[in-house]
Amino acid sequence: MDKSIFKAVPQPTLRRLAQYHHRLKQLEAMGRDTVSCTNLAADLKLAPTQIRKDLEFSALTGQAGVGFVLSDLIHSIEAVLGWDNTTDAVLAGAGSLGTALLGYERFTQIGLNIVAGFDIDGTKVGLKIHDKAILPLNKLTNLVQRMKIKIGILTVPAEVAQTVTNLMLAGGIRAIWNFAPIILETPADIVVENVSLASSYAVLSNRLLEATKTQTPAQTT
Amino acid sequence: MDKSIFKAVPQPTLRRLAQYHHRLKQLEAMGRDTVSCTNLAADLKLAPTQIRKDLEFSALTGQAGVGFVLSDLIHSIEAVLGWDNTTDAVLAGAGSLGTALLGYERFTQIGLNIVAGFDIDGTKVGLKIHDKAILPLNKLTNLVQRMKIKIGILTVPAEVAQTVTNLMLAGGIRAIWNFAPIILETPADIVVENVSLASSYAVLSNRLLEATKTQTPAQTT
Repeated sequence: MDKSIFKAVPQPTLRRLAQYHHRLKQLEAMGRDTVSCTNLAADLKLAPTQIRKDLEFSALTGQAGVGFVLSDLIHSIEAVLGWDNTTDAVLAGAGSLGTALLGYERFTQIGLNIVAGFDIDGTKVGLKIHDKAILPLNKLTNLVQRMKIKIGILTVPAEVAQTVTNLMLAGGIRAIWNFAPIILETPADIVVENVSLASSYAVLSNRLLEATKTQTPAQTT
Repeated sequence: MDKSIFKAVPQPTLRRLAQYHHRLKQLEAMGRDTVSCTNLAADLKLAPTQIRKDLEFSALTGQAGVGFVLSDLIHSIEAVLGWDNTTDAVLAGAGSLGTALLGYERFTQIGLNIVAGFDIDGTKVGLKIHDKAILPLNKLTNLVQRMKIKIGILTVPAEVAQTVTNLMLAGGIRAIWNFAPIILETPADIVVENVSLASSYAVLSNRLLEATKTQTPAQTT
């Protein structure tokens, strides 16, 4: 199959599709049946044209005056994001961040199921955290292989992140969600998504700095 | 002062500047004095042209054949990001995510100092988590006002996120780092940076889906 026939969805669009999905699920829970780009834009403080452009990556087109059938739009976004089936994952590193992720309730809504956590700390192994078993790290490769798990969540310290990545890859993991502040060495066909708190904070701190700079004395008194 | 004379640094550039900063601090710790865009690009698996373009937002230009003086480049990036001085912040919600952030060691390197945590849970109030005092939520507005704190970190459940935001704003908070999966109602001049796990996972799950789709049978056997 020719790879070039697929038009990759840009990262910012994927991020916004997740936002739309969240809001649409809320509207569904409120008993709504349809939604327009204009209303969705107002709810999310985004431009309607932005939303229309993003939704072109889904298979649907809205109807003038009616908008989208809510359930169709949700399914269509889920198909783009791969959220229409539950995907199993393992998590390595049951520290406070790992604990937070093991208990993150929204993961079930987006089709992510953490099967188990792994740690090297003997005081954690054997525990259940948010109902997920914590297993010894040396069982990771085998379990991943046996259960054909494709997603690994990495919440270990940076110093051991590469070693644990290698254990994941040895078991057949194809995608790594990396919360450790380190660039991982992985083969080209492995998907890596880095979550960087510092990068997110960079946006906040720069915007705050600029807002402070542009305040005239008249504004600050 | 005319706002239009400031050229806003695009969000993706700010995120990458944080990445460069992290790598440059590592190189500094290794005793290096200079760095070239080419080497930085190889370390971070990015295109050298991308790095050159991003660094145009800093005040520096590298020298042909030498590159950048490491310490100058670090300071220049810190000036753009507002990381050259320590900024105080408060955190609300001392659950597992809040606990992870209270103990996140890299914050000191990027100039973020969490002064205290706040919670409504009586079993947490009075504790110290990673050496930070956990105070009752009803003291938040007053402390923020008294200490002139400008940044609030929000790690409370979505249901109470707006209420806690209002407490922060009442004390004079100007920027909110929001980890709750909710769109906050805030005045236009308040900086809000949303951290969405689902948005990050959307990128990972879509890329994994596309990689699976484009695998030919020949590749999978």
